[in-house]
Amino acid sequence: MDVQLTLTGILDRAVDLFSDREIVTKRPDGSVHRYTYADAYARTCQLAHALDDLGVSEGGRVATVAVNHFRHLELYFAPPCSGRSIHMCNMRLPDAHFQYIVNDAEDEVLFVDPAFIEKVEANADAFETVERFVVLADEVPETSLDAVAYEDLIEGRPTEYDWPDLDEDAECGMCYTSGTTGKPKGVAYTHRGVYLHSLMCGHVDANGVSESDVVLPVVPMFHANGWGLPYAATLVGAKQVLPGVHTDPGSVAELIDEEAVTLSAAVPTIWLEMADYLDEHPEVDISNIDRLTVGGSAPPESLIRKYDERYDAPIIQGWGMTETTPLGTLSTLRTELRDRPKEEQYRYRAMAGLPVPGVEVRIRAEGEDEDVPRDGESMGELQVRGPWVVGEYHNRPEATRSGFTEDGFLRTGDIATMDEMGYVDVKDRTKDVIKSGGEWISSVELENELMAHEAVAEATVVAVDHEKWQERPLACVVLREGHDASEAALRDHLADRFPSWWLPDVVEFVDEIPRTSTGKFDKRTLRERYGDVVLEEGDV
Amino acid sequence: MDVQLTLTGILDRAVDLFSDREIVTKRPDGSVHRYTYADAYARTCQLAHALDDLGVSEGGRVATVAVNHFRHLELYFAPPCSGRSIHMCNMRLPDAHFQYIVNDAEDEVLFVDPAFIEKVEANADAFETVERFVVLADEVPETSLDAVAYEDLIEGRPTEYDWPDLDEDAECGMCYTSGTTGKPKGVAYTHRGVYLHSLMCGHVDANGVSESDVVLPVVPMFHANGWGLPYAATLVGAKQVLPGVHTDPGSVAELIDEEAVTLSAAVPTIWLEMADYLDEHPEVDISNIDRLTVGGSAPPESLIRKYDERYDAPIIQGWGMTETTPLGTLSTLRTELRDRPKEEQYRYRAMAGLPVPGVEVRIRAEGEDEDVPRDGESMGELQVRGPWVVGEYHNRPEATRSGFTEDGFLRTGDIATMDEMGYVDVKDRTKDVIKSGGEWISSVELENELMAHEAVAEATVVAVDHEKWQERPLACVVLREGHDASEAALRDHLADRFPSWWLPDVVEFVDEIPRTSTGKFDKRTLRERYGDVVLEEGDV
Repeated sequence: MDVQLTLTGILDRAVDLFSDREIVTKRPDGSVHRYTYADAYARTCQLAHALDDLGVSEGGRVATVAVNHFRHLELYFAPPCSGRSIHMCNMRLPDAHFQYIVNDAEDEVLFVDPAFIEKVEANADAFETVERFVVLADEVPETSLDAVAYEDLIEGRPTEYDWPDLDEDAECGMCYTSGTTGKPKGVAYTHRGVYLHSLMCGHVDANGVSESDVVLPVVPMFHANGWGLPYAATLVGAKQVLPGVHTDPGSVAELIDEEAVTLSAAVPTIWLEMADYLDEHPEVDISNIDRLTVGGSAPPESLIRKYDERYDAPIIQGWGMTETTPLGTLSTLRTELRDRPKEEQYRYRAMAGLPVPGVEVRIRAEGEDEDVPRDGESMGELQVRGPWVVGEYHNRPEATRSGFTEDGFLRTGDIATMDEMGYVDVKDRTKDVIKSGGEWISSVELENELMAHEAVAEATVVAVDHEKWQERPLACVVLREGHDASEAALRDHLADRFPSWWLPDVVEFVDEIPRTSTGKFDKRTLRERYGDVVLEEGDV
Repeated sequence: MDVQLTLTGILDRAVDLFSDREIVTKRPDGSVHRYTYADAYARTCQLAHALDDLGVSEGGRVATVAVNHFRHLELYFAPPCSGRSIHMCNMRLPDAHFQYIVNDAEDEVLFVDPAFIEKVEANADAFETVERFVVLADEVPETSLDAVAYEDLIEGRPTEYDWPDLDEDAECGMCYTSGTTGKPKGVAYTHRGVYLHSLMCGHVDANGVSESDVVLPVVPMFHANGWGLPYAATLVGAKQVLPGVHTDPGSVAELIDEEAVTLSAAVPTIWLEMADYLDEHPEVDISNIDRLTVGGSAPPESLIRKYDERYDAPIIQGWGMTETTPLGTLSTLRTELRDRPKEEQYRYRAMAGLPVPGVEVRIRAEGEDEDVPRDGESMGELQVRGPWVVGEYHNRPEATRSGFTEDGFLRTGDIATMDEMGYVDVKDRTKDVIKSGGEWISSVELENELMAHEAVAEATVVAVDHEKWQERPLACVVLREGHDASEAALRDHLADRFPSWWLPDVVEFVDEIPRTSTGKFDKRTLRERYGDVVLEEGDV
């Protein structure tokens, strides 16, 4: 029974049983690249030979700076299966962080999309360990980098590779947290962790990725293993659809239509905007969709309702982090809830949900040894442990000490509640929750309710200082085109659901809300922007 | 990420998230015992304390001689989670084998159902290591054994237990192969293997055991972990229905009706006979059934068709062995087959099916290093490897050497084909295949086709010696009550499907076919019975 759980096993199964299934990529020029798992396997073997020739060391890391496409998928397997590791870089990081992660990971070769060559050129001098650059294209565009084209690199090499026997605890990949405060932290995944995560992703009580699915990860492949979808889809031999740079809601909708996609995953914004696109393009048909997974931030209930009613496309929320590979919880409906009224179901489906099989979850108040009551109201920090939850940060003993409990749970920094059925509801980030007069106000709940207002396109809520109450909420609202709403109207809207002391003292109408490198609302920037606002009693 | 995969994790999840789900047992007197996972957990803790007091050693084994009921389920967890192991004995073994397995496993305590006390009494003197007997009942019936009642044993003990941290590679349980030839062979399972098997059982591309299921294992819990169902059901918190001694088709049908069972598992005979029962009892409603898993031997296509058409209850065949925990393949329909004609689908569904995620399968001719072609025709031995396929037999180095290949595959002793899509079709056991003039005739295929004849209740085919052809097939047929069929009519029936040289030379009409301790046709006894039959050319 000492068979090791490795990515080689995932790859082998796909090519053994589903060699003729398709992997479809939308190229930058809008044309479509199609090939099969058999083709992908042959090229993955060629790439592994190329890594040998490039002299990538045993256990050494290769970096990718790339969107979702077939070459990136080949890189998901060739380095780890040949005994190395893939480090997927987020190209939206600021330069200083980009340099830091490449050096911290000691990346030996860097694979880059033509679109991001400038970003790499601008930082290449600061890279201490990168010995070669590979451009993920047929040929190398004009560049100052000493680079080879991916196709030239692999061309003519053998299409079989004698994969080594690997220890399942060996590192297979690495991502960095985007860290809105401080330096990004490196998270190293093991073959075992990713294998188990992939197996779990196919579980009925998780998101049930199956050989009958057509999977479209809109979430970038550099973002927590593309939420594990490329690996889970390969394990089962599902058809994969990779959108490349075409992740705008219109392109995604059309790709879903053209390729008969059944499962797609993205941050809520994509599905929010895609709904508008579908309203304007009734000819686009997304009826093959069986479920849409969202993560990164919670979807408003109104969005779940809209997709249910209009497209019969259930939105399932997942919660996870880079540290959790990432799937930790999923808002599937327990049997007990399936005959409840729709409105009640939407309330559960908008939560982070139930721990997936394999993951342990608990909610603890700071400094306490007992879990908070499972009453759906008591807040505390969400802490998780499981075979695909990492136990440390790379090269960062201090961050590891503060980031994990003594008994091995990850301190997520999320403030959450749990109810008697085990549903986790994330209320806020520890650093975003608004501490008003000794009580906590959830910025996330206020945001969701604001976004449920028909005039609101986007909304975020941050803490500003208050002379008496320490902190009070300030809302930034982007109105929907052609709609209007007054500050009083929005406050009235919130008053239906929240106690009066939760209502934002100030509502700022803005054209745009700044976002982080992973597309989340950038609350740090907003807090800085409104940092000199100090409210006094009677200001509102 | 060094979280160990243990049965404690399975138990913890059930009680953490699904503590109020029911576990239902039909008692010997026909009354129903109901309790929740919370109750089961408390009693499992009590049992663990009792094992401590009984002095069961670390890693020591406790034997069970029991059918499927709640106390047996508690025994599925308390010994392994407290660092021991459960050895589930097949009480239908002949005495000599029963004595052998208890001594070979060095069982320290033996838990026995009242119904099997006589069997235990008859062998107790030969047990070398058993120090105590526990009767799985409220009180001890009259017996020569030094026995305590299970309820007395656990009563009053603490309902919490401080489960030890276990190594996932530790043994959690043990079953013996029933071995129609030679002594039974011990198969030791690890926590890791059973955990992974349980996770896989919930995979959509396996049998998708979910929290929404109501699971009824008709297959005995001493038969390869009850096909893994009790563990898989506990991992997801599914309601479990345990039939006790009531495994006759009528009782099973009624239990399915009363408890709204969605998933049940048994050998084909049960479903064959249940169909007759349902014909006679149209008031019994099995419409909640979502799928019926069969294993042990292949179901005839006619049975699959009947359950589809009449009850909308798909029969899914699984293939496995004691050595494989047991699930190895499952006859789910690949997407490509879902719009094919029903008749074609039935053909695939009657096969052993596709390797489940995690299991590697290959078909090799004796002495060859290459797999046979995947043409659905070339036969060879089915060999399997995977994280829940054991790698050795307990205390039997020689059996281990002959039972496994050098690269760690289990030699299953099954003769099978594989087609281009990966569907495995088991044609025979190595020792049952009929070697006629240098060609192979599958006894299993002949049996299935015979059983598809409306007049045939049961049929089996064995080899008898032949002067010219070495071996020729002989069929034993049990006719259905009120039906009649001549030898010639049955041979005509087979001639529609098989070449003339496959047709049995002799058809014997018998009242009953002898069965093994696991309910399979006992071909060894039949071969002995017809051992002096030597056919000559022209006999037919």
